[in-house]
Amino acid sequence: MQQLAPYSAYLENEINAIDFPKDPSNLYDPLRYFLSLGGKRMRPILTLLGAELFGESKENALSAALSVEVFHNFTLIHDDIMDEAPLRRNRETVHTKWNQNIAILSGDVLFVKGYQLLVKQKPEHLQPLIELFNKTAIEVCEGQQMDMDFESRKDVSIDEYIEMIRLKTSVLLGCALEMGAVIGNASETDRKHLYDFGQNIGIAFQIQDDILDLFADPDKFGKQVGGDVISNKKTLLNLHALILATDEQKQLLWKLSTETDYQVKIDKTKALYEIIGARAICENEMKKYHSIAMKSLEEIQIGDSAKQPLKALAEFLMNREL
Amino acid sequence: MQQLAPYSAYLENEINAIDFPKDPSNLYDPLRYFLSLGGKRMRPILTLLGAELFGESKENALSAALSVEVFHNFTLIHDDIMDEAPLRRNRETVHTKWNQNIAILSGDVLFVKGYQLLVKQKPEHLQPLIELFNKTAIEVCEGQQMDMDFESRKDVSIDEYIEMIRLKTSVLLGCALEMGAVIGNASETDRKHLYDFGQNIGIAFQIQDDILDLFADPDKFGKQVGGDVISNKKTLLNLHALILATDEQKQLLWKLSTETDYQVKIDKTKALYEIIGARAICENEMKKYHSIAMKSLEEIQIGDSAKQPLKALAEFLMNREL
Repeated sequence: MQQLAPYSAYLENEINAIDFPKDPSNLYDPLRYFLSLGGKRMRPILTLLGAELFGESKENALSAALSVEVFHNFTLIHDDIMDEAPLRRNRETVHTKWNQNIAILSGDVLFVKGYQLLVKQKPEHLQPLIELFNKTAIEVCEGQQMDMDFESRKDVSIDEYIEMIRLKTSVLLGCALEMGAVIGNASETDRKHLYDFGQNIGIAFQIQDDILDLFADPDKFGKQVGGDVISNKKTLLNLHALILATDEQKQLLWKLSTETDYQVKIDKTKALYEIIGARAICENEMKKYHSIAMKSLEEIQIGDSAKQPLKALAEFLMNREL
Repeated sequence: MQQLAPYSAYLENEINAIDFPKDPSNLYDPLRYFLSLGGKRMRPILTLLGAELFGESKENALSAALSVEVFHNFTLIHDDIMDEAPLRRNRETVHTKWNQNIAILSGDVLFVKGYQLLVKQKPEHLQPLIELFNKTAIEVCEGQQMDMDFESRKDVSIDEYIEMIRLKTSVLLGCALEMGAVIGNASETDRKHLYDFGQNIGIAFQIQDDILDLFADPDKFGKQVGGDVISNKKTLLNLHALILATDEQKQLLWKLSTETDYQVKIDKTKALYEIIGARAICENEMKKYHSIAMKSLEEIQIGDSAKQPLKALAEFLMNREL
């Protein structure tokens, strides 16, 4: 996205400049490696935009933005262990390239690094910033635990699923934006609106992710289409399909879960989700959260032109290729 | 130790009162369980004593004291995974009682809880407290990494070993005390002296631990005597013995490392360490760090009577049964 390119470039540069000691190399080499793997850097961009919305410079919000990105990378290192993921951004994960103990410990250190960056902010902002960061960090862990618990549960409700994605991924977007608002001395009310904007955009984005995983154009999608279906992962599509399905369709879905020809499994599941109406209902939910988000943005007591970058970002996030 | 009993009781009570949500129970049950396993609560006592030394009430230092104890327990949960330890204080470790993923994630949450407790301190103390906490947390991880690296190394020097125990265990004692000093508005110089006192007592204590592991009276020692020898662990005794040994003694030690009759292994190693002089040199090192610690305590610009509890604590720590 053209408009955000200068922010990405600025952050990429600053992320590369994060300094780690040489020794113990088994602790710090994995962190240099992992942070260099890149990513959209969406979360720290949100902090910079949040600060600018209230007239504060992006430079003054930088250390908080970096703390959010560093925290996000810490969660990825630990999540990759828990998910036994061999790859991240097409490169080896830390526990694969080194070992699991090193991934646990270097993750822990990266988490502290997040606090070290955050504590560089002005003393008068420390209490609200750290309280927000703490609350969010705990929620992200709760979301990850719920996600793991869901694997062995057969009675996950739509509400529980939405709560899981809210905690696991969306609260961090809200937090990233609100940190910017704190640094920009926004009112409590505006802070809350900006947080809600981020959180609801996050939920909409995550629902879109579930849809894209199955319905994306394989030529334009960065990863394998149908991955969630192959692994029988619980997604919003899947949960809605099971609720809406007739007994016969349920039988079919049940059969498909053990289908070993993956292309057949994907194609038939996809067709069934369309017929059942699961795709349509998920798209509606996505639009609902997007619209709640935009209303929160409207509520903020700032002129429309200042909100333009955030609106553009929300549009960008919601218009990935289907 | 009689004099510290009221502090222990006060802290035990407050640790039991730390509140965790009910759900997700797989995240929070392990924390309720682990914190209830007890322990000497030595680190939070240090924070309370540090504050009282400078005339501040223990109540005002409480949340910082709890943050140190909570942090310590977080490191134990993660260390137990890395060390594949089945038991902690004769009870199952978290990764044994639940599973490894739960131990990683609930450990992460406990770490955040430490920051949540610390941020309850007065706003004007937040920056120094959190900076000290961050620095210490990183050092503890570095110490753990060094310890793991040592397992596969044959050239560990005495200096490296001391640096490892300083980072892994001693800096947290210094941090616990200095936090109390920050809360008690001590001067920078006094803060530094109190930190040094804690750090050097910690090193002396850890050296004593190495000695006790082999030379303690089995009837009075809480755990199996000779555990380090059985597992061929690098300890200060072992490193000094290898430096001081004649070629013949080195051969003997080498042979003993593969001895399968553990009682023979322990008895012969013990006798050899005495003859070589490894025990004596370790006891001297222990006394050296103890004496450096006591000098730092002397330097603090506070009347002698106020220092009495800390002196008593140092005596207590250094006079475990040999």
